[in-house]
Amino acid sequence: MTTVFINGLGLIGATLAQLMKKGQPDLTIWAADQQRENLTAMLAQGTIDQAVSFEKGAPAADWILLAGPVQVIIENLAQLATMPLKEKVVVTDVGSNKEAILQAAGPLMARGIAFIGGHPMAGSHLSGSRNANPAFLMQHSYFLINGSASHDQLAAFQQLLAAGQFRFQALTAAQHDQLVAATSHLPHFLAFALINTILPELAAWQIDPGLPSGGLLDTTRVAKADPTMWTAIFMTEKDTLLDQLTAFQQRLTDLAQAVADGEAQQIRAFLQAAQAGRLSLEERT
Amino acid sequence: MTTVFINGLGLIGATLAQLMKKGQPDLTIWAADQQRENLTAMLAQGTIDQAVSFEKGAPAADWILLAGPVQVIIENLAQLATMPLKEKVVVTDVGSNKEAILQAAGPLMARGIAFIGGHPMAGSHLSGSRNANPAFLMQHSYFLINGSASHDQLAAFQQLLAAGQFRFQALTAAQHDQLVAATSHLPHFLAFALINTILPELAAWQIDPGLPSGGLLDTTRVAKADPTMWTAIFMTEKDTLLDQLTAFQQRLTDLAQAVADGEAQQIRAFLQAAQAGRLSLEERT
Repeated sequence: MTTVFINGLGLIGATLAQLMKKGQPDLTIWAADQQRENLTAMLAQGTIDQAVSFEKGAPAADWILLAGPVQVIIENLAQLATMPLKEKVVVTDVGSNKEAILQAAGPLMARGIAFIGGHPMAGSHLSGSRNANPAFLMQHSYFLINGSASHDQLAAFQQLLAAGQFRFQALTAAQHDQLVAATSHLPHFLAFALINTILPELAAWQIDPGLPSGGLLDTTRVAKADPTMWTAIFMTEKDTLLDQLTAFQQRLTDLAQAVADGEAQQIRAFLQAAQAGRLSLEERT
Repeated sequence: MTTVFINGLGLIGATLAQLMKKGQPDLTIWAADQQRENLTAMLAQGTIDQAVSFEKGAPAADWILLAGPVQVIIENLAQLATMPLKEKVVVTDVGSNKEAILQAAGPLMARGIAFIGGHPMAGSHLSGSRNANPAFLMQHSYFLINGSASHDQLAAFQQLLAAGQFRFQALTAAQHDQLVAATSHLPHFLAFALINTILPELAAWQIDPGLPSGGLLDTTRVAKADPTMWTAIFMTEKDTLLDQLTAFQQRLTDLAQAVADGEAQQIRAFLQAAQAGRLSLEERT
């Protein structure tokens, strides 16, 4: 009997639980969550078999999935380092700050426990197990930042999540954190700043701009995201975010200089590269 | 019999023709366009009554709508200034650079001809009369930058377009150009620069980022827009664009400084203002 223990049945934890149970119905899944309703919902749909405490779940598990917020994952890794665990257990997580998480997993790995940093790549403004749904994650990329797992353990982990049809990709923690900063944190940062540029001006002019264009709405949609969650992300992932922002400001300056100088050819080349790049993103969907 | 002459049956010119004909089926609409297929399509659907040359159409018209690209509108205004025209004719346009257009309309207005700068606010990555469709423009804002029309002429113009159920709003040319720079040109500029930041990095790392998130796709969708058209816009509307870019860079610096300093309260306040602002945009749709 293989037992999985999941700490945290938010949107990601609950969806991964659904995928594991779908792929291997005879798997035993235990879970802990501070919100009782997350456990109740997953028990009712048969996704998890038992609600347990962290202290009971972790020692009994063959797989431990840490699926709380980044700060909770970091605390869990410290707890696990001093708990009795099965010798062959594999510990993994779904947090987005891999440099901090791999560092926090150091003492656990020093004990000889296998740790794999993991990150399924899909975002949503929804949260909580009530929105869990395999389609939300299926076929997306799943980044693996291996800490101390063997080749066989890595293969077994991918098998555990086979129902997700993920595109597993190995990255270093540094690459992962820059990738997420570039493709998610930076676009959010810009959208917040763009809205805070446009709206005060409109208010000052006392102009009713009427119905916004689809372009403006799309460009700024992510500015609707939760301010508290994004404050925490900007705080904890400050270095990679500011690196990406510096790279962006360089591109912005290049284009602004070409516009200021009236260099039509240079502007057009910049825009053509962007158009081609954007179309290439679309081809993946 | 009231005759409207339209020069340019692109997406905007053709859609406005449809709305005028819908509102007043007995209106006579003549049109000129360099692309024969635009004229053929609009004749076939009964939107226009006759395809004519600029030289024949303008002198016969009670209303002249200039609906070509900005540079063509500017040339048309110079031509009209020296042509025989009906004494009570009202000339209007749909270009997006109102300071340049109002200046170009100077000689025509000096002759005593009424000119109204107009700009229906709706964008599309589609173009051409084949995509014309009243729903694309209906109920959007329609900015009026009056040059020399009387109160009665302005009212009659709004009546001519009544089927569009537009929200007509009077602006100065300078206000209009800043508004368009802030809500359309700046978002395009940022999307081009964002794609050109992200994609070369991914390529350099040889990382397949997998399926892009909806957030990234939305934020950069306008980077698919036509590079030639946007090069021309950035060139001709350089001053207002660079003004808006400076304002944006100030907001960006404010937020980056708060992140660098770890000022959580300041970051959260910035994000809360942006979220509220973005939600207020949505309420208009």
